[in-house]
Amino acid sequence: MLTSYIYSQLQESDIQRLTARNTDDTNAIQDTVLQIIDSVRNEGDAALTALAAKFDKVNLDRLYLDKEEIEELAMTITRDQQRALEIAFQNIHKFHSTQLRRERKVETMPGVSCWREVRPIEKVGLYIPGGSAVLPSTLLMLGVPARIAGCKEIVVCSPPQSTGKINGFVAYCLHLLKIDKIYLVGGAQAVAAMAFGTESIPKVDKIFGPGNQFVTKAKSLMQSLTNVSIDMPAGPSEVLVIADESANPAYVAADLLAQAEHGPDSQAVLVATSATIVQAVNDELAKQLAILPRAEIAKMAIANSYAVITENLQDAMAFSNNYAPEHLILETDQWQTLTRSIINAGSVFLGHLTPESAGDYASGTNHTLPTSGYARSYSGVSVDSFVKKITFQHISEEGLQQIGSTVEILAELEGLHAHKNAVSIRK
Amino acid sequence: MLTSYIYSQLQESDIQRLTARNTDDTNAIQDTVLQIIDSVRNEGDAALTALAAKFDKVNLDRLYLDKEEIEELAMTITRDQQRALEIAFQNIHKFHSTQLRRERKVETMPGVSCWREVRPIEKVGLYIPGGSAVLPSTLLMLGVPARIAGCKEIVVCSPPQSTGKINGFVAYCLHLLKIDKIYLVGGAQAVAAMAFGTESIPKVDKIFGPGNQFVTKAKSLMQSLTNVSIDMPAGPSEVLVIADESANPAYVAADLLAQAEHGPDSQAVLVATSATIVQAVNDELAKQLAILPRAEIAKMAIANSYAVITENLQDAMAFSNNYAPEHLILETDQWQTLTRSIINAGSVFLGHLTPESAGDYASGTNHTLPTSGYARSYSGVSVDSFVKKITFQHISEEGLQQIGSTVEILAELEGLHAHKNAVSIRK
Repeated sequence: MLTSYIYSQLQESDIQRLTARNTDDTNAIQDTVLQIIDSVRNEGDAALTALAAKFDKVNLDRLYLDKEEIEELAMTITRDQQRALEIAFQNIHKFHSTQLRRERKVETMPGVSCWREVRPIEKVGLYIPGGSAVLPSTLLMLGVPARIAGCKEIVVCSPPQSTGKINGFVAYCLHLLKIDKIYLVGGAQAVAAMAFGTESIPKVDKIFGPGNQFVTKAKSLMQSLTNVSIDMPAGPSEVLVIADESANPAYVAADLLAQAEHGPDSQAVLVATSATIVQAVNDELAKQLAILPRAEIAKMAIANSYAVITENLQDAMAFSNNYAPEHLILETDQWQTLTRSIINAGSVFLGHLTPESAGDYASGTNHTLPTSGYARSYSGVSVDSFVKKITFQHISEEGLQQIGSTVEILAELEGLHAHKNAVSIRK
Repeated sequence: MLTSYIYSQLQESDIQRLTARNTDDTNAIQDTVLQIIDSVRNEGDAALTALAAKFDKVNLDRLYLDKEEIEELAMTITRDQQRALEIAFQNIHKFHSTQLRRERKVETMPGVSCWREVRPIEKVGLYIPGGSAVLPSTLLMLGVPARIAGCKEIVVCSPPQSTGKINGFVAYCLHLLKIDKIYLVGGAQAVAAMAFGTESIPKVDKIFGPGNQFVTKAKSLMQSLTNVSIDMPAGPSEVLVIADESANPAYVAADLLAQAEHGPDSQAVLVATSATIVQAVNDELAKQLAILPRAEIAKMAIANSYAVITENLQDAMAFSNNYAPEHLILETDQWQTLTRSIINAGSVFLGHLTPESAGDYASGTNHTLPTSGYARSYSGVSVDSFVKKITFQHISEEGLQQIGSTVEILAELEGLHAHKNAVSIRK
């Protein structure tokens, strides 16, 4: 079912075409989003209430739920579900806790001390998609590092359900994160509200979170229209599986389908070291698709995907580095030697027993990752995404003697005499 | 000369106005830049040669200088100048070397191992402004962390001089950085060339560097039009000096002028704990301006700046955190206690003998810093800016038993059955 290509027969231009992502950026979306942005800027809360009536089909008296309402909803889920969310929370917390580290001072010359200190971004906004796909896991993936970073204000927006409430799973995650409020705002309007601020919703410094094309477009527009920053550009989710003879075709097919069920525009790429493997995976795909609830979506994504047959694992990795996948799964016994040659990828899953879905939910790593080839230059979300590193320096009298003439010479050669004088006047 | 405001008399809206930056974003610039982008996309090298003739007034046979030409130019500067650039290089190298660190593996549950590994961004583009202001220091500030990160391809663009060459200082920095080629391309066209790639100039994954309004606009446009990423949004440079009775008004004035001489749109803000201090600094400003070569520029910047008088250092810091300055200088004996309350700043200079110009050139810290309030959410350039952190995970049989049911429950509650099956099939 996956269209196959032979790697050794591909031209440079074929590889470019295969690794390029579908960037279906219609102006229609941009126009709609700009209209929404304008109305939120001009009318604030009133616009948000009107948009909730229009898009979410709900009349809201108030744009948020408070602690009591959240706690009540959180208790509507089963103990097993609570326990699963708790384990995910703990693992994510454990992994992300190690990312916050003090750096040591460096004396670059006697009397010249330089160092960096970490400070949380004060106000962050987390967008949690809702509606048909409820994603409590995303709240954990963004909320845990925000808490570890020490962000002072964590604003959470999620579209209201038709009841005017939120789903119990999201509520339980808020409970675990000790977040006392959630704003019932979805879509592009949530992004605009957090970037501008409204009567109810605080203006934030940085906006995080996935969303549909409207949310994504709103994030990119707000980034250029205001001084809010965003976690990363977003596109459809994707996986690349590298498989050799040691791979179990059933596992490979299961991993490709886990990606494919996200949406018709998801991409699930198989890079295998023989045509036999591709055939076996295709057979398994057919078998597993037959009983998959979201088979219609998955089929469209598979039609949008392909397989590449290489002669060896080195070529497979070369193709993968070119593609720069969000998720990379190495279904080979050789994973240990292969990791060294990974250059571009968001998150990597090693060996036969490490499904991507473990990382999506509970192993501890973050699932907010660069898509569409952005893994070439972006990292996934981590505690780093919620902090700044500020540089500090202190120069003593000795230090000024040591460094002074160097600064004077360099300022002079750049023609900046006041820069020079700031040193000379102190000597 | 600096207009003064009394902090205790300022309303919230006054503070908002004072801390807002001048965002003079004319469509005229955008239109010009879009035209340049289009011609580079369509005509490649030919467009670059034509634009060099138009803007840089030079006819280029070839769009780059090679190693031999660079070495020759590098030897035209004096030994003292070479030595000053070497010291700056060494200090920057020493400070930035400590930023690349291995992270440890975390076993979040028995048999579930997660960790991050650092990989360089493969292809980076460095823009070095030229023309009237030649900035070899910028090449060191970008080139050193790129080298430490291990970037495979470092593409440097800088506008040609009327001789068709580059300045000897820039050449000497290329020599120190062991970079064998420099592209003679400036302005928005350099940014477009590095984002698209041309016959001569390689396409890069991330573009770094300061520039005029055209360069800045081109970076922000290319970030949204292509999948290239950029170091940070840029605006005019700025400093905020906090001074109390212990400050030397001559030093304070010298630091404000070092900022002011950058350009008429630079901002130099003084936050002082008494009106007497502001008066003394104003007197010194007049004195030092009288003998400053770039006095005309500095005067315009000072007219665009102001002083705030607070009752104590805590209020001064509160104002500074609100402003979120690119450069913050603490000219007070109390700097040690004050640093803890710094939340938003790009780079901080501590005490009476630490002029900002030391950090601009030679102390070791990076001078590519967030302006225009972006210090609320961005860090300055560091080795971090030239790498990605990729997450890895490995799950053993034991690990799968430990984590399996948690993933299954969470996948099921999100309605993603193929995600669940990727675990179930392995159990």
